[in-house]
Amino acid sequence: MKKLINDPDDVVEEMLDGMVQTYPDRLRRLEDTQVVVRADGTPDGKVGIATGGGSGHEPTHAGYIGDGMLDGAAAGDVFSSPTADEFEALLDACDAGEGVLAVIKNYEGDVMNFETAIDLVEMEGVDVETVVVDDDVAVEDSLYTSGRRGVCGTILVHKAVGAKAAEGASLAEVQRVGQKVVDNVGTMGVALTSCVTPEKGEPTFDLGEDEIELGIGIHGEPGVENADMMAADDITDELTEAVLDDLDVEAGQEVLTIVNGMGGTPQMELFVVNRRLQELLGDRGIETYDAWVGDYMTSLDMEGCSITVCVVDDELTELFDAPADTPALSVQ
Amino acid sequence: MKKLINDPDDVVEEMLDGMVQTYPDRLRRLEDTQVVVRADGTPDGKVGIATGGGSGHEPTHAGYIGDGMLDGAAAGDVFSSPTADEFEALLDACDAGEGVLAVIKNYEGDVMNFETAIDLVEMEGVDVETVVVDDDVAVEDSLYTSGRRGVCGTILVHKAVGAKAAEGASLAEVQRVGQKVVDNVGTMGVALTSCVTPEKGEPTFDLGEDEIELGIGIHGEPGVENADMMAADDITDELTEAVLDDLDVEAGQEVLTIVNGMGGTPQMELFVVNRRLQELLGDRGIETYDAWVGDYMTSLDMEGCSITVCVVDDELTELFDAPADTPALSVQ
Repeated sequence: MKKLINDPDDVVEEMLDGMVQTYPDRLRRLEDTQVVVRADGTPDGKVGIATGGGSGHEPTHAGYIGDGMLDGAAAGDVFSSPTADEFEALLDACDAGEGVLAVIKNYEGDVMNFETAIDLVEMEGVDVETVVVDDDVAVEDSLYTSGRRGVCGTILVHKAVGAKAAEGASLAEVQRVGQKVVDNVGTMGVALTSCVTPEKGEPTFDLGEDEIELGIGIHGEPGVENADMMAADDITDELTEAVLDDLDVEAGQEVLTIVNGMGGTPQMELFVVNRRLQELLGDRGIETYDAWVGDYMTSLDMEGCSITVCVVDDELTELFDAPADTPALSVQ
Repeated sequence: MKKLINDPDDVVEEMLDGMVQTYPDRLRRLEDTQVVVRADGTPDGKVGIATGGGSGHEPTHAGYIGDGMLDGAAAGDVFSSPTADEFEALLDACDAGEGVLAVIKNYEGDVMNFETAIDLVEMEGVDVETVVVDDDVAVEDSLYTSGRRGVCGTILVHKAVGAKAAEGASLAEVQRVGQKVVDNVGTMGVALTSCVTPEKGEPTFDLGEDEIELGIGIHGEPGVENADMMAADDITDELTEAVLDDLDVEAGQEVLTIVNGMGGTPQMELFVVNRRLQELLGDRGIETYDAWVGDYMTSLDMEGCSITVCVVDDELTELFDAPADTPALSVQ
């Protein structure tokens, strides 16, 4: 498997350097760490928003740093949690005196290392609250989690808490809206191909030429069902129905949807999926307030997509519509 | 080869529907055509900016419709020019009385069909000027062109002419800045894998497990050199040096760079390439005014990238920095 990399051991380092060189006015790397923060730091008087996790999900995480979203993000090695030290440096850097909200995807390594770091910075007097995202409706427990996995719904948490913090809200208020998104969002994904990690250089799981894997995670974890290849509309129906059933969405409710590419999927195909998704929601009497299509949380070069649905109310739509200016997401 | 599609014959239709459903406030499809225009039409008093070409290059073309860039785009079938009728409908729709600039990538079908359409609308009194983009430094002539191919540099033409038109400039002035970009931009690409068209369902060209193709176009056309797989830094050097030599860039000059993903390339790898690109420019004493990294002009699911360099002056940097608000590109 060919990749545009040099030594696999250097790929995260080189990626982070390349990213900061792409956005030198926006992003800054903390020396001797894999932590990226806003070039101008967390604005005074604002609650800091911090997140992080394994690399290989770009533009997650550092791509969402900027006005209206994140103040900093720690990058682990590919598909590995950042260390507690990295998370500590991140939390310290993101605090501008009003405390920090840590957005944590529900993986055991991330949760454990973030919690260790939180204990450490709290001893130094930094207030930290957390939101743990577990939007993947496919599995109850997985290879890397107790409870459900955190996947693409995390981007909506970033957007909501970032907008709330930008309003000057308190740490408790920022935490509340983050948890509100978590309580109202669900995601399910499909893989047409396995991802290939730089280190291993070959597919993480086997998938036949006529097979797909439903309910995949974002690390090449096995899904819940190995199925025969289907038409895009049928795949969309499977994913959407699983999410709608889990969330118990009813006719008349309003939702924001995301069709998220897994990294190797052409945009053409994502729009084909969105067409069917919107048709299906219309048939069920569910109203789409906004539809996002793109690569938001990827799994290296995996082909496939995930569908995220978030039930919204006036408070959430206001936060999702608020201005944001980050490398990967811009709302004007 | 698996794709998230239904019937290959419907893929462009379904993609366009899915795209308009994603951005209903921004995009509108002209009935019974594959033409997409701004939902609110070309603003009064502004020169219209129109483009188009084969599908399979998303977010090119309709992804760049919006404030500060395009007013409309015609989509052909996958890797096929739109018909003259489609281009005619596009030009008519984009004219708000001040004339239309047509941005044409230098492919024989696109040039011929656009010219036929221009003849037709000019008879109805619509003023049209053209800019033909031919930024690919790899080949002098190709399967589909007399002269060089138009590739990712086209996005910079869209940006510059869109910004100039938004200022209220005349059609001649808008055309002038478009041509100025064309005169100062070069691109070269590499494929790690061939793309697979929905219709054919298998790779367009053969590439061994340890081979890459240098100088590829955006339609799976053969490149100029089949080479052994190399490290990302070596590939970056090959592409960058070809472009710099062609443009005759000298120390002290300022450039805008693009590392463009071909559709199947993880963002991680694009940042690794950008890191080396910036290092190389620094070594040569060339100053980067701005660096773009992302999927701007793709070739379905092809893995690989292209590197674009545009020599800039104060006029061009002002146009590139001007606000834009489109689905695929946002400058705040």
